[in-house]
Amino acid sequence: MAKVKIGPSTHLYPKPAVLVGALVDGRANFMTASWCGIACEKPPAMSLALRKIRHTLKGINQQGTFSINLPSVALAPQVDYCGIHSGKDTDKSAVFQVFYGLLQTAPLVQECPLNFECRLLHSLDLGSHMLVVGQIMETHVDQGCLADGKPDVEKIDPLTYASGTSQYHRLGEAVGQAYGIGKLL
Amino acid sequence: MAKVKIGPSTHLYPKPAVLVGALVDGRANFMTASWCGIACEKPPAMSLALRKIRHTLKGINQQGTFSINLPSVALAPQVDYCGIHSGKDTDKSAVFQVFYGLLQTAPLVQECPLNFECRLLHSLDLGSHMLVVGQIMETHVDQGCLADGKPDVEKIDPLTYASGTSQYHRLGEAVGQAYGIGKLL
Repeated sequence: MAKVKIGPSTHLYPKPAVLVGALVDGRANFMTASWCGIACEKPPAMSLALRKIRHTLKGINQQGTFSINLPSVALAPQVDYCGIHSGKDTDKSAVFQVFYGLLQTAPLVQECPLNFECRLLHSLDLGSHMLVVGQIMETHVDQGCLADGKPDVEKIDPLTYASGTSQYHRLGEAVGQAYGIGKLL
Repeated sequence: MAKVKIGPSTHLYPKPAVLVGALVDGRANFMTASWCGIACEKPPAMSLALRKIRHTLKGINQQGTFSINLPSVALAPQVDYCGIHSGKDTDKSAVFQVFYGLLQTAPLVQECPLNFECRLLHSLDLGSHMLVVGQIMETHVDQGCLADGKPDVEKIDPLTYASGTSQYHRLGEAVGQAYGIGKLL
């Protein structure tokens, strides 16, 4: 099929739709983000790109900690709400039931089936955004979303975000086993 | 629901299943990766975590360029093949039809509906992995996968990878409009 050049773009798919938790000026705040991924295995680390003006970035720098919370599809309206409203103007501390874990300063969302506690390791200034790297210190999973001791993606029913059409999507069905279907070639 | 602590883990969902292209010792090589995300808007940048021993990392450092290619679900066997076999032992230069764009040294996969050309900006040593940040210099899209000049995720039908169950999944249906459904709260 013929290719079209559209210039530099950021339309990578799929992207997770997560809630970033931080204590900002002592108050729990949750920001919607999709520019987030795994950065290292040993130690386990997460990367997160944040526009420099973000209220959440202020809290991450204040405490040196943050959380990444994975919502299921049912939480899509709340996730979108946290993407529309900034913690500068809106108190989002009561949108979710908040709990704290190992780090004590990284607010976690009870309603999200999967939660990561992160300790700030690096901040890389890339231009409009800071790329924040956090060491994953603890993972919390809803008991019913585990399979063989690991978080099961089908039970979690995670929310994804597609930037081109600005739509949230659910994850679809399994299409093959990794380290398996490639052996047939 | 009761939460269970499983220790530090890297089971973030969803993750894209992409092919990283690089010229290694002058030969096009393609590696499967899912620890990849957008890192900045201005300039547009991509982050990619690579185990330090990866053949692909050698090529990225040799040329200072790489590509990120988004396969559709139909390419799942080829993607898995590129995850099973290392370019150290296997010549993967003929698995796909290769083309080159602006950067001339970042091999691109014709069969993938979406391709990004990246120029190496930063390498951050995190332990087992290097976090590589590349400026996105050009995006190539299959003509039939565009909608309003942007890559349309439903037409692309991207492949995703779930680490817990080691399954590839397709993206599911849209569940709501971003900057929309949160206004109802």
